[in-house]
Amino acid sequence: MLFDVEQHWADLALDPASDRPLYKQLAEAVRSLVNRGAIQPGERLPATRELAGQLGLNRTTVSAAYAVLEESGLLEGQVGRGSFIAQHADPLTGTGATSFRLDWEALLPPLEFPGGAGRKVDISFASSRPNAEAFPLAAFRRLSREVIESPEAAQILQLGSPHGYPPLRHYLLDQALAAGIARPGDDLIITNGCQQGLDLLARVFLGVDPENRTVVLEDPVYHGMVRVFSRAGANILPVAVDAAGLDVNALEEILRHTKPRLVAVTPSFQNPTGATLSLERRKRLIELTRRFGVVLVESDIYSDLRYEGNALPSLKQLDPSGDTILLNSYSKVSFPGLRVGWMIAPRPVIARLAEAKQLSDLHSDQLSQAVLLRFAQSGELARHVERGRTAGSDRLEAALRACARHLPAGTTFSRPTGGMNLWIQLPAPLTAETLLNRVEERGVNFLPGGYFSAKRPHLRGLRLSFGGLSSEQITRGIQILGQTAASELAAHTANLSLEPVAALV
Amino acid sequence: MLFDVEQHWADLALDPASDRPLYKQLAEAVRSLVNRGAIQPGERLPATRELAGQLGLNRTTVSAAYAVLEESGLLEGQVGRGSFIAQHADPLTGTGATSFRLDWEALLPPLEFPGGAGRKVDISFASSRPNAEAFPLAAFRRLSREVIESPEAAQILQLGSPHGYPPLRHYLLDQALAAGIARPGDDLIITNGCQQGLDLLARVFLGVDPENRTVVLEDPVYHGMVRVFSRAGANILPVAVDAAGLDVNALEEILRHTKPRLVAVTPSFQNPTGATLSLERRKRLIELTRRFGVVLVESDIYSDLRYEGNALPSLKQLDPSGDTILLNSYSKVSFPGLRVGWMIAPRPVIARLAEAKQLSDLHSDQLSQAVLLRFAQSGELARHVERGRTAGSDRLEAALRACARHLPAGTTFSRPTGGMNLWIQLPAPLTAETLLNRVEERGVNFLPGGYFSAKRPHLRGLRLSFGGLSSEQITRGIQILGQTAASELAAHTANLSLEPVAALV
Repeated sequence: MLFDVEQHWADLALDPASDRPLYKQLAEAVRSLVNRGAIQPGERLPATRELAGQLGLNRTTVSAAYAVLEESGLLEGQVGRGSFIAQHADPLTGTGATSFRLDWEALLPPLEFPGGAGRKVDISFASSRPNAEAFPLAAFRRLSREVIESPEAAQILQLGSPHGYPPLRHYLLDQALAAGIARPGDDLIITNGCQQGLDLLARVFLGVDPENRTVVLEDPVYHGMVRVFSRAGANILPVAVDAAGLDVNALEEILRHTKPRLVAVTPSFQNPTGATLSLERRKRLIELTRRFGVVLVESDIYSDLRYEGNALPSLKQLDPSGDTILLNSYSKVSFPGLRVGWMIAPRPVIARLAEAKQLSDLHSDQLSQAVLLRFAQSGELARHVERGRTAGSDRLEAALRACARHLPAGTTFSRPTGGMNLWIQLPAPLTAETLLNRVEERGVNFLPGGYFSAKRPHLRGLRLSFGGLSSEQITRGIQILGQTAASELAAHTANLSLEPVAALV
Repeated sequence: MLFDVEQHWADLALDPASDRPLYKQLAEAVRSLVNRGAIQPGERLPATRELAGQLGLNRTTVSAAYAVLEESGLLEGQVGRGSFIAQHADPLTGTGATSFRLDWEALLPPLEFPGGAGRKVDISFASSRPNAEAFPLAAFRRLSREVIESPEAAQILQLGSPHGYPPLRHYLLDQALAAGIARPGDDLIITNGCQQGLDLLARVFLGVDPENRTVVLEDPVYHGMVRVFSRAGANILPVAVDAAGLDVNALEEILRHTKPRLVAVTPSFQNPTGATLSLERRKRLIELTRRFGVVLVESDIYSDLRYEGNALPSLKQLDPSGDTILLNSYSKVSFPGLRVGWMIAPRPVIARLAEAKQLSDLHSDQLSQAVLLRFAQSGELARHVERGRTAGSDRLEAALRACARHLPAGTTFSRPTGGMNLWIQLPAPLTAETLLNRVEERGVNFLPGGYFSAKRPHLRGLRLSFGGLSSEQITRGIQILGQTAASELAAHTANLSLEPVAALV
């Protein structure tokens, strides 16, 4: 039986303007004909040249489509005879060799980060996380045992509340009320770390009005923040960050013309720059958001990791209206493997977040909530944070000293007073991607600036996360970075001098 | 200074066609004028009658807007003099009494389930969860201690992978491969229970093409499933469920005309009906989804809770293509307070789910993953499930016996052979909501059918979840239900007979 090209393809609408390559569109069209029974197993497909002519396609497009279909088992090629729909058992019995595979690449969105190289790394500046060697394992073990042995174990194992494990929730809310962080009208919800807090905010606030999904973010900004909002369809408006944090004048300019759904900031030891918003700017920021009636979101996960100077009040504390939404987490100050964070906000906000939380995963894991509660109540958390400040201070000092000493002239770097991250700006023409490729060969890595782009590309920016490394590793890693950057710059200069002098015309 | 109505309101665009009440729109417009400095503190607002006339509004609309603004502190009323913008400290200092509160109700989406009554309940049939009294606490404590004492504790506490805790992930994948559930091309991701699995699916599959967000679901269906998809913008197509599960003929009719993004089913002991899809229908379902090239999602969380008859193969096992996406969880068979579930699917699917997972909450809590791994590996989980089958069988028998004995004539109920739920259909004119109001007065509750609506209202349907109750509670609870239903029906009949006979014209 001959394949009737004209009839079968009459209704086919391949779209040359589509983002999907034509060969994929064609492959899916053939698959669809087979699935609907318009073409039967054993039928021969038209020759690629013939079909290409009929459809006005390039012959390579048709060949590529056939190759994809053959790969998936739908077509069988027979040398010299052409391509045939594969023989299957009767597809209606459902029991035989029916194995039409789905074309997953066509059904799924593209991967954001396809394939990790998986190169061996000795010194990784890539992850903003605490040092595992400093974990107070003995205290963790003792307190976990207490939780497990206690009568509350049975309660922990049973289905819980979307707001969180009640004893932890009440403890955190009481602490926050006592510190003037929470107000009487506030409520608190436990999340799986700060990341889920951001995700719940995106769900609640970007779902209200599809016409307004504008979110103001710092630029550069934590990539998990920008991605969670952009994936939720946000229109991101960037505001630059300098040594004193967010540029509040630039924010005011935006607010004069736009009413964003959210303004989200990390005022203390911002990820990735390490910058801290000055007290003056904090006040301006609150005044601006209140004057323009927009929602202010504060991620405060690093503020306990201050290594010098005095603590600044959080935006939530400073905000006379009390409307600031605060995100916090145990992940940066204790154990990131236990996913426990929280949000404090006026009751109506928490009520919506709890509904979104319930749809996300019902509630957070209760065993870790109970263990971290005990860790906090026992005073072990405070002691751990205190020790972490000393160790962090040493690390930060090592990082800043190594930057000053080893980075080539023209490089600038931020000077955080706490946290886990600092930001380096390379001199032109060196880009962070180029440097990354070079230092990976020497067992060092980091995240290049492009990762932290709210809008601007940050081609010469890069983040060094020093929280998980020893001072020795930090020093050696930055030495390698500096040497490599210097030799790349020198090579470029050498290349330049080899170029012919430009003619004057 | 007099308030210049014409100028200030010239640009105002209140939208009478909007869902938002006009008084809210007006209140926000006034707030916006103040926030932008167009009106100053101390200024007097026009009289409600005057403004209503200018704007073509009802005077009560303007009064309501003023009331809202006064409530929020933005306006101050002075008897006999009218309404004034409240006096604040200079809003530019940011330090004074600036306390413009945000209008949260205007900024937030409406609550889906506003206000819980919080009535005291003795016997709750409302939650599909295991019986806490049966938790093997001794085993849990022993195995948790082992995890905590082990050297892997340090690894558990450190940041993990979005795919899950590697030892658990490998264990589950090996088990699934050995059972013929997973195929060589499959991968596995750990989620916070099955609910997060559904949420990740909604994110990945409904984000591909805004033009096609069609999802086929059973009707009635688990409310957490329909809500997660509809919140993601899905167009839900319902397929009825009968004693042998999903109506596959109705599904075929849909697939002939529509290509949904997903078809999601719970073939074993479906929530809420308790129905199990017959082997014949399982085969038909796979054949249909493969023939029409659509993605099949199977939630298999209840299948281990079979109390009679032989286990049926899962769709994932039966599917010759291997493309079925399987969701499973430890929550129903062990401890729901530890949020650990998983998904098995072809690699390209899991890769996208892992990206979505990372944005949701980085990864699942590792302490519970390690504890549940030990619980499974030690054989304690299998023993617990075995005991659960015996206890569940007693509970199910008690429920079915009580239904047969106590429910009034005309009531029908499903006859599950496992799981935690059964479905009751009340005789007209009694609705589940009416019955719920009555039995709550007697300390009993359940979820009415409307909760489980994929599309149809299920006004006379209700779910009884018996998993968390003792046989005595089940019997007593159903007795109360039956008595109450009978007396409601009798009252209705009595009322009918009191109504005058209808005239013949």
